[in-house]
Amino acid sequence: MSDVRKTIAGGATWQVVAEDRRRHRDATIAEAKPEAFSREDLAITNSNVKDLAARLASGEWSATTVIKVFLRRAGAAQGLANCVVELLPERAMRRAEELDRYLAENKKPVGPLHGVPISVKEHIAMMGLDLNAGFVAWVGRVAEEDALLLQILWDAGAVFYVRSTQPQTLMHLETSSNLYGVTTNPFNSTLTAGGSSGGEGALVGLRGSVLGIGTDIGGSIRSPAANNGVFGFKPTSERLPILGWSAPMAGCEAILGTIGPLSTSLEGVKLFMKTVVGGKPWLKSPNLVAMDWRDTTGLFSERRLKVAVMWDDEVVKPHPPISRALEEVVGELEKSQNVEIVDWAPQGHDRAWSIIAGLYFADGGAQTSEAINASGEPWQPLSKWIVQENPHLKKHDVTSLWSACAERDEYRQEYAELWNKKADVDVILCPVGPGVAPKLNAARYWGYTSQWNLLDYPAVVFPVNDHVSPEKDGAPIADYGPRNDADEYNWSQWTQHGAEGYEGAPISLQLVGRRYDEEKLLAALEVVLKEAGLPTAVPPTKAT
Amino acid sequence: MSDVRKTIAGGATWQVVAEDRRRHRDATIAEAKPEAFSREDLAITNSNVKDLAARLASGEWSATTVIKVFLRRAGAAQGLANCVVELLPERAMRRAEELDRYLAENKKPVGPLHGVPISVKEHIAMMGLDLNAGFVAWVGRVAEEDALLLQILWDAGAVFYVRSTQPQTLMHLETSSNLYGVTTNPFNSTLTAGGSSGGEGALVGLRGSVLGIGTDIGGSIRSPAANNGVFGFKPTSERLPILGWSAPMAGCEAILGTIGPLSTSLEGVKLFMKTVVGGKPWLKSPNLVAMDWRDTTGLFSERRLKVAVMWDDEVVKPHPPISRALEEVVGELEKSQNVEIVDWAPQGHDRAWSIIAGLYFADGGAQTSEAINASGEPWQPLSKWIVQENPHLKKHDVTSLWSACAERDEYRQEYAELWNKKADVDVILCPVGPGVAPKLNAARYWGYTSQWNLLDYPAVVFPVNDHVSPEKDGAPIADYGPRNDADEYNWSQWTQHGAEGYEGAPISLQLVGRRYDEEKLLAALEVVLKEAGLPTAVPPTKAT
Repeated sequence: MSDVRKTIAGGATWQVVAEDRRRHRDATIAEAKPEAFSREDLAITNSNVKDLAARLASGEWSATTVIKVFLRRAGAAQGLANCVVELLPERAMRRAEELDRYLAENKKPVGPLHGVPISVKEHIAMMGLDLNAGFVAWVGRVAEEDALLLQILWDAGAVFYVRSTQPQTLMHLETSSNLYGVTTNPFNSTLTAGGSSGGEGALVGLRGSVLGIGTDIGGSIRSPAANNGVFGFKPTSERLPILGWSAPMAGCEAILGTIGPLSTSLEGVKLFMKTVVGGKPWLKSPNLVAMDWRDTTGLFSERRLKVAVMWDDEVVKPHPPISRALEEVVGELEKSQNVEIVDWAPQGHDRAWSIIAGLYFADGGAQTSEAINASGEPWQPLSKWIVQENPHLKKHDVTSLWSACAERDEYRQEYAELWNKKADVDVILCPVGPGVAPKLNAARYWGYTSQWNLLDYPAVVFPVNDHVSPEKDGAPIADYGPRNDADEYNWSQWTQHGAEGYEGAPISLQLVGRRYDEEKLLAALEVVLKEAGLPTAVPPTKAT
Repeated sequence: MSDVRKTIAGGATWQVVAEDRRRHRDATIAEAKPEAFSREDLAITNSNVKDLAARLASGEWSATTVIKVFLRRAGAAQGLANCVVELLPERAMRRAEELDRYLAENKKPVGPLHGVPISVKEHIAMMGLDLNAGFVAWVGRVAEEDALLLQILWDAGAVFYVRSTQPQTLMHLETSSNLYGVTTNPFNSTLTAGGSSGGEGALVGLRGSVLGIGTDIGGSIRSPAANNGVFGFKPTSERLPILGWSAPMAGCEAILGTIGPLSTSLEGVKLFMKTVVGGKPWLKSPNLVAMDWRDTTGLFSERRLKVAVMWDDEVVKPHPPISRALEEVVGELEKSQNVEIVDWAPQGHDRAWSIIAGLYFADGGAQTSEAINASGEPWQPLSKWIVQENPHLKKHDVTSLWSACAERDEYRQEYAELWNKKADVDVILCPVGPGVAPKLNAARYWGYTSQWNLLDYPAVVFPVNDHVSPEKDGAPIADYGPRNDADEYNWSQWTQHGAEGYEGAPISLQLVGRRYDEEKLLAALEVVLKEAGLPTAVPPTKAT
């Protein structure tokens, strides 16, 4: 498909550039030939990564058959949640045909992800495609090669077929841009899909994808995973390669961004991690840690898993559905012989937010502002909120930056000591946010996720197989005296909208490990799900 | 010993503060009761770490016997090289007595370093002791607790007994300060002991210590190890804890400093690394990488070791003794069935120096200058050279700092690709500097060591059991047209002073691994030494 882009550099207005991008998107969707889904189509898209990979490897399903269905299903997801930047029918089909030929000739798959469709957030480079990172001014930047992560997944047999939406600045826990509009929640269109990997969240939530790639520096994988009821994993930084992503502030290292999977299944997350780490990405991206993927077989058969529960971060109180879900899960775990439960007393999470919010835009927001202003596109409300109205944001000089980094390190040490005192706690179980998916433009408290970015701890989000309903969550609320402005704002959202306002929203929780404990954390989640009686994969959505 | 410090804050002049520090030093040496060394004394100080630890663990030598000898030997080293900041007779004896009691009562050692004396560079905190980091103005700062590294070594049974010298700024490859004067080379007093861990280098070179701790951000462990003919190891950053060291520019992370051992033996280096990493320092210092010490048994019995030789970094040509030693070692290795030799073509080492030299003092040198100027102490020539006369030094703002870090990362990626193209090269063998120990105030080219700080590769220095001599190195030099000013300066040092000028200086080489390949690198060095017919420990020095 020819794609001669209209760009700001080429003299177009921001409105024309954006309209042209949407026209291009719609053309790629039309090309994927939408039609009704057959029974086999549904069997394919209702599969999860592990099963899908097995059937593809055996040849039971061809890569072309599978990718055709996922192209159409991703196209359908666009109509439901506005989550797609473009479909890639031509290159995906070419790739799938190549894989089918390989399997026929060699009687073996290319790798562990042979034929598995993977969706990709737009700002992760794909050779020859636009790389706008959500800024109108950046439309027309074309990637010269695939991001390193995609190269590794390609070598393992992946098929890339859809690119997904992200917000202006990449720094919202929602997904609104002037290029593609608002990505809404498939379960309740008055709510956000979350962000910044909101396109991935909605796509995976709608089974337009079973495995997608998002990025996370404050909750951007976990918020959309939670809001759409799927699994999402933010690893420790410098374990997976971000080389080849596009974003402002390249070279900033005070807070490191991460990249990771969203999936309909825990097995999808695990296979993704094992495959990427197995590709030894540190040999090409030497800032990464050269740490092999460690086997955890039998880890929790020899001893009990010790889970510390953080009910509330003591800054912003979670809405009732979150507290209810946490109580239910903990109630089940307490019955288990294989799990020990203790409480986690949070320490200085408000201070943590002030530290990280003061380090996100250490240039005072100059590069981000420039990327917005260069096209004349309007500032989205949440862009204003995090850049222009953020009281912690500071234009640092080198000396004040060092001092802020030293404060960050001190906080990290204090938190490590807190954990050391808890002796043998393996993981922390806690909310993903102070509520389920927020109303649009209301995602203003990042603390439940950004906490673990500041500490650089791995964190995985999982659905509890439940949704907000007036029956379960409609009880009248006792009076509550908020602790601070953020708490007041969050609580007012619940008192204003109530269970009806959030009806249908998936409920999710978060499990957090110590730094570099990726393998242990995922093994722990497996125990938690089993002992809490929760599925390790998302059941087919109502939307099918 | 009472030690009421004279300080700048207390109204003393810099001269009085410095004189008072030297008076204190001399008093601690007098307390260690210097006397002639008996045959057993010499047997003890001529032992290396592994043997010493075995005899201490068995009780053949008591911890008190051992530490008394090392206290006296370190005191004697002071007379030869001016390398001591203070001896710690009282606390070392108390500790040794405690260890002797423990062994008597429990019939087993406290840990793998039971009773092993360890010397420590001054700017690594020891509770209750001064922590001046080489600045007169900082005298009077007292450490509130031991550095984390020392805590771990303490738990393993170590005895700390001497603190060693460092230069003003900590940023020379020599060791001159206004507090303690010049640390000279024990093998030729017209030469430098190297730096900035020059006190450690001289102490270990003189067997006033068999295991010492230095720090390295541009060569500061490796230069003194090389200049004094001992082993020295700079690991990848964030494997060993620097928590508790004192230096300007806390919070800077563009180039990370490292901490590591100097020792009379390779076994000393290995035991140190294994012990510290085994202490899981990342649990207390969470910026560290949670990577256990990996067993390499049998690694090079299954396949040949592949060594790439970098003869010259193509920026500054090494002096004849270095090239000669490299040729001799490579000549031996080429005869071996167990080693494969290829050439290493360096790539952009001049650019590497401009990048790292532009990142060392990203505040334009403000904090370092302030630390010097606060006392009125004079600037040492090499402080001027690296701060005031450094053409790459820049006062960055946040934007230019990010851009410089991005350039650093790009260079790191290019170098990784260079190594990837060399397929299965295990290690690089190269010079440690462009000559043996320089004349005083002449250590002006860091490239052979700082290269691996910029890349953050582990690098180990080893002696080739040889020294400069007019017989071997006195041949007339062919005309040489220098490549640049640094090359001209370095070459003029040799043409001016010749083999006679450097007579007696130990000759050392450097082995470099890929990032995080600490274990493999040390295993490779063992193969190199064996196949080159070199000892794994330093023979007793002439000075005994």
